[in-house]
Amino acid sequence: MTTRNLFLLPGDGIGPEAMAEVRKIIAYMNEEMAAGFTTDEGLVGGAAYDAHGAAISEADMAKALAADAVLFGAVGGPKWDSVAYEVRPEAGLLRLRKDLELFANLRPAICYPALANASSLKPELVEGLDILIVRELTGGVYFGEPKTITDLGNGQKRAIDTQVYDTYEIERISSVAFELARTRQNRVCSMEKRNVMKSGVLWNQVVTETHKAKFADVKLDHMLADAGGMQLVRAPKQFDVIVTDNLFGDMLSDVAAMLTGSLGMLPSASLGAPDAKTGKRKALYEPVHGSAPDIAGQGLANPIAMIASFAMCLRYSFNMVAESDRLEKAIANVLDKGIRTGDIMAEGCRKVGTTEMGDAILAEF
Amino acid sequence: MTTRNLFLLPGDGIGPEAMAEVRKIIAYMNEEMAAGFTTDEGLVGGAAYDAHGAAISEADMAKALAADAVLFGAVGGPKWDSVAYEVRPEAGLLRLRKDLELFANLRPAICYPALANASSLKPELVEGLDILIVRELTGGVYFGEPKTITDLGNGQKRAIDTQVYDTYEIERISSVAFELARTRQNRVCSMEKRNVMKSGVLWNQVVTETHKAKFADVKLDHMLADAGGMQLVRAPKQFDVIVTDNLFGDMLSDVAAMLTGSLGMLPSASLGAPDAKTGKRKALYEPVHGSAPDIAGQGLANPIAMIASFAMCLRYSFNMVAESDRLEKAIANVLDKGIRTGDIMAEGCRKVGTTEMGDAILAEF
Ligand SMILES: CC(C)[C@H](C(=O)O)[C@@H](O)C(=O)O
Ligand SMILES: CC(C)[C@H](C(=O)O)[C@@H](O)C(=O)O
Repeated sequence: MTTRNLFLLPGDGIGPEAMAEVRKIIAYMNEEMAAGFTTDEGLVGGAAYDAHGAAISEADMAKALAADAVLFGAVGGPKWDSVAYEVRPEAGLLRLRKDLELFANLRPAICYPALANASSLKPELVEGLDILIVRELTGGVYFGEPKTITDLGNGQKRAIDTQVYDTYEIERISSVAFELARTRQNRVCSMEKRNVMKSGVLWNQVVTETHKAKFADVKLDHMLADAGGMQLVRAPKQFDVIVTDNLFGDMLSDVAAMLTGSLGMLPSASLGAPDAKTGKRKALYEPVHGSAPDIAGQGLANPIAMIASFAMCLRYSFNMVAESDRLEKAIANVLDKGIRTGDIMAEGCRKVGTTEMGDAILAEF
Repeated sequence: MTTRNLFLLPGDGIGPEAMAEVRKIIAYMNEEMAAGFTTDEGLVGGAAYDAHGAAISEADMAKALAADAVLFGAVGGPKWDSVAYEVRPEAGLLRLRKDLELFANLRPAICYPALANASSLKPELVEGLDILIVRELTGGVYFGEPKTITDLGNGQKRAIDTQVYDTYEIERISSVAFELARTRQNRVCSMEKRNVMKSGVLWNQVVTETHKAKFADVKLDHMLADAGGMQLVRAPKQFDVIVTDNLFGDMLSDVAAMLTGSLGMLPSASLGAPDAKTGKRKALYEPVHGSAPDIAGQGLANPIAMIASFAMCLRYSFNMVAESDRLEKAIANVLDKGIRTGDIMAEGCRKVGTTEMGDAILAEF
């Protein structure tokens, strides 16, 4: 029996407002398309800290583990800037990634045609841009041990973070990148710092071997991560799929997102390995943008990234490809019609709030 | 007695061609201005590997340690892509940085007015851009131990890199940033990932304390490094001085350099602590660009970054501020006249090679 259990974690800041617009779409799909989604909801980030003193409760972790897909809003805000490291809002997100083993983070950086002018880059460099960054999400310096601050006496402290990568981790993330490339322009660029880091050396070797063994039909390039950052700014359209580690992926995907001029609109998917029996992957979908505490609660937030994240959920968790395409098309149509939230407002366009934007997309869907 | 001993390490690729143009300026300053520079020259990178089987020989290391300043060209190239990790070309540069204790890497990202159109960003975003990135250069993941690849058996390897920062390292690099900010717009933005890395937590604390204790007159902001990468692309002029760790500095300074459209023109200085007795700092000056093997040996390379690095050398190692200003002005004048190497060629300009560019700058000097 196919289940479609969604676990919603709106989080902090603009998360709840954006999630409300997705809830409308889910309701619509249940009523009009008999989609059969069931939903449950929990707390994460500062909201969970305020309620439970932890960035996510054990009960909500259990629900996330049991769900077919998790929809995640955003976490953090000045209110929690000085809570202890272990319970800071981000810890909830990091625990979800780690405990659900969501090793593959897919971050499309696309430029909506209607927004090419919003980019800080010259429009001709970003028009039609369509990059997919595949970021390793459960390894590297985010989770490696030791990760400590030690008091050395004499007024000195020592902070240590550890970047660790094993062969299998690099193998599985590069396989995801190669597979996705086959559905696109069939090109992968792998980025690391093999000239400085041993993990870069191993990364480069394993990607090369994985390519040779199973994906020789895909074009593979290697680039040093610093040069990659440069090339993203210089000529982003040269890239199709980029595969890189957790920390470089964090930096490079943010730079790539900003290039598009569509930052408030970009979704992401974090996927686990297919289950050996059922073939199902654990998955979490979240906007690339943050919790934007400055505009939270005012009905001003752009819900497009959250809605586009749900479109990714339809595609990757439920194989509802037609529905996903339609939802993405609905977003593009609304933008083409000149309907804009404040963050993407431009001359001659009509400025709307969060709810109106959600309604407009639903009307096009 | 003031000595002005320069040790020249042209290195690989376009390094030697670019260095030849600096040599002309040194000769001119000795003849016409009685500057009293003495020079010696050594091998580094692939050139040293070919000669000695190491990325720099002990004899040349001794000379670098004894010199008042080192001028460094560039290292690396496909020829040495598969030499052992320990003797790869970059190892020479990393050893120089470490053994000379050059902890402070100054990377100006300026936009030469004549080149604002060469940026991939909209000209109004980069015109007049003048950022100084202060990158920590002898710590972090570049040098921390363990740094290993271990065979785990069963076909698996494990790579480990370690990021280590002690209080004093953060204190001294942030002090350099604050001091330099006072000579500029008096603003520092510190970047780290305190939401994920313990070294980011300590970095943030120590920068904050150093600011409070000694530099409270300087405006200090903190930004997460991924958000910093975004903001550099979105609105680079918001920054004055950026201070960050070795790896983030590597990434962010490359992105910043590319923004200016002046990549082939950007210099850098790597400085040690002032000697307790003489007040002298060990120092190495190098272009931000690499060895560009594709155009090496053809007389096409742009020598401006190397010459601008020498201008930094005049300023920081020899306190020859007027001469440094004049040399920088000479570069700007030549660009204003429309003289261009191929990498920065634009309509209506005159295309020249490496030597002619060097001659044109010398003529303006
Ligand atoms: C919130 C933070 C922990 C997170 C990260 O660093 O991975 C964010 O920047 C991201 O990219 O999803
Ligand atoms: C060549 C390489 C080792 C070096 C670095 O990573 O520091 C370079 O990228 C730089 O920025 O100077």
